[in-house]
Amino acid sequence: MGEYVPGLEGVVAAETEISEVDGQGGRLIYRGGYLISELEGASFEEVAYLLWNGKLPSAGELEALKSQLAAGRQMNAAARAALQGIPKDADPMDALRTALSAQGARPGVPKPTLEDAVAYSAVTPTIIAAFHRQRRGQPWVEPDPQLDHAANFLYMMKGEPPEADHARWLETYLVLLADHGLNASTFAARVIASTGTDLCSALVGAIGALKGPAHGGAATAAKRMVEKVGGVDKAERFVIDTLDKHEKLMGFGHRVYRTYDPRARILRDLAKTANPEYYPVAFKVEDVAMRELRDRHPERPNATNVDYWSAAVLDAAGFPTDFFTCVFAASRVVGWSAHVLEYIAKDGRIIRPASKWTGPQPQDPNQERKARAG
Amino acid sequence: MGEYVPGLEGVVAAETEISEVDGQGGRLIYRGGYLISELEGASFEEVAYLLWNGKLPSAGELEALKSQLAAGRQMNAAARAALQGIPKDADPMDALRTALSAQGARPGVPKPTLEDAVAYSAVTPTIIAAFHRQRRGQPWVEPDPQLDHAANFLYMMKGEPPEADHARWLETYLVLLADHGLNASTFAARVIASTGTDLCSALVGAIGALKGPAHGGAATAAKRMVEKVGGVDKAERFVIDTLDKHEKLMGFGHRVYRTYDPRARILRDLAKTANPEYYPVAFKVEDVAMRELRDRHPERPNATNVDYWSAAVLDAAGFPTDFFTCVFAASRVVGWSAHVLEYIAKDGRIIRPASKWTGPQPQDPNQERKARAG
Repeated sequence: MGEYVPGLEGVVAAETEISEVDGQGGRLIYRGGYLISELEGASFEEVAYLLWNGKLPSAGELEALKSQLAAGRQMNAAARAALQGIPKDADPMDALRTALSAQGARPGVPKPTLEDAVAYSAVTPTIIAAFHRQRRGQPWVEPDPQLDHAANFLYMMKGEPPEADHARWLETYLVLLADHGLNASTFAARVIASTGTDLCSALVGAIGALKGPAHGGAATAAKRMVEKVGGVDKAERFVIDTLDKHEKLMGFGHRVYRTYDPRARILRDLAKTANPEYYPVAFKVEDVAMRELRDRHPERPNATNVDYWSAAVLDAAGFPTDFFTCVFAASRVVGWSAHVLEYIAKDGRIIRPASKWTGPQPQDPNQERKARAG
Repeated sequence: MGEYVPGLEGVVAAETEISEVDGQGGRLIYRGGYLISELEGASFEEVAYLLWNGKLPSAGELEALKSQLAAGRQMNAAARAALQGIPKDADPMDALRTALSAQGARPGVPKPTLEDAVAYSAVTPTIIAAFHRQRRGQPWVEPDPQLDHAANFLYMMKGEPPEADHARWLETYLVLLADHGLNASTFAARVIASTGTDLCSALVGAIGALKGPAHGGAATAAKRMVEKVGGVDKAERFVIDTLDKHEKLMGFGHRVYRTYDPRARILRDLAKTANPEYYPVAFKVEDVAMRELRDRHPERPNATNVDYWSAAVLDAAGFPTDFFTCVFAASRVVGWSAHVLEYIAKDGRIIRPASKWTGPQPQDPNQERKARAG
């Protein structure tokens, strides 16, 4: 048995061709060998097809997937009942976790399939949008099969056709966040799936992992931090005070990247025009933070992570701050399911690591302890 | 970066003092250094206290925990609504996964606490029993705060006070299965919790993992296999035919044990008197299987696992075959939550392993591919 590596940092826990994070080079490679920058302008449906099938779709394949996604958008009766019961003030991720779990309630333990992956990806925005409206006392908006995935998502949120720009910003986000190597939620999905369970179980576990502030929850935290700054002229003071108090700046640092996250770069460029109110403060905070972090911790690579600029773009597209993690899930559900299908296809073994015992060794079993427990 | 180890076999992914599986010696050690055999006759509440707190309770501490558990048995409105929406024919684990997720729907991302651990452990049997009755068209039975955990579980299933023997058998089972090192569902719970998410999210993910036939689902599979045999006299033929066809015998083999599972031994002894109908066939199948597996695969340790004899005991206690995994969850929820609390207390890092890229390297980005995706 080897040594315990906290966080399993650097431990190779999968072979995968779904995506690769080249932390040193600051590159994210999607299935088929596509750099994330090559996929700017691609639609969510195209990239989902790519991650699930290993190649970009032909025109006919793309239309078929679009139809399949549009047909899978409806919540079933179980999901509707579950969602209706969720309290207004609950975290939106709890609503998504519960309703998606209900959507997957069926007999036995179905083996994960591509059809399932498409269906769960299709219904995820419907659940999110329905909870958004429900907690504001508004009726749900049924999905519009004429609209593409991103546009329909915004339509269900707002109840009216979205501006083209908003749909484009959301689509860019959904494409960029769809997969990212062996992040914690994807790894959780693989661990769960390795027992031979169904796809829904793996996705529901991944949603729970994504919710954590050290993972998908970071975008919401970053937005709240930037809002607290109170203006460009206060950014320098804010960053220095925060670091002086040994508090954490939200949205900086990543386990794998040793340079600027290529997704953050694209989202930052987008935020400049998409969110002119938010951008200047966020830009200034980033600028000071990068300088201060470099000065204080020259040994640490501490570049902005994707969550920092996700916040700006999702805000511009009209999502409430506490829904950012849900939108992340609506993108990453594609990656999660692609990883599960890959694991199943390779007939992966159950993921059952070892642990190191740090407790006391058993005493002689004939001692007084037995009487106490009896 | 090291080599990829399929299933993370032998990779130390945690330091823990919750439990230790000594696979070579065939020993299971619970927190505080208790051998599982020392805890025969202990109550579920005592062992839950031990796993959560690191020592067996005093009389006063035990009473306090019993009251806390009894007070936490009620499903809240969200869980009730979610459970009512689950179709009759759904897998009971899907009902549990969904209703427990609903039970945990609340504002924000609460940090896991011992109070939460007690509350989720308390409500788990209520959800399971309610689904059992609901799918048979019977009204739910509200929990009886006067009854202990195991007895109340059976009471809610049947709607009448259970026989003392049945409650004792269930209690023995619940004590034996409450924790087991870094099994796949516990590992999933730790991975999920490592992102800083709430306890409910970690437990819901663990439930999804436990559902898999290579994990908690094995007891149900073992029972169905033994039933198919059709009598003691047919056992030899059945086992040989199954192995000749290269099919899997359910309930044999384990990642860690290299000898007879100490829990299986206790449950086998119990099954002899508790389930005189089932025992003889199961015993004969085991006997032939051990001999045949030894002959055919002398290199493999292939002893009976706990699931094989769990089936006999849970059947005797009155649980339907497709509820075995749920009862497993009602026990293991204690271990899952103890592991999450341990990880949080140690300020554990996010579990984010590396992966090995097996896909193609990016081409020159100026090639024809960009146009296609654009």
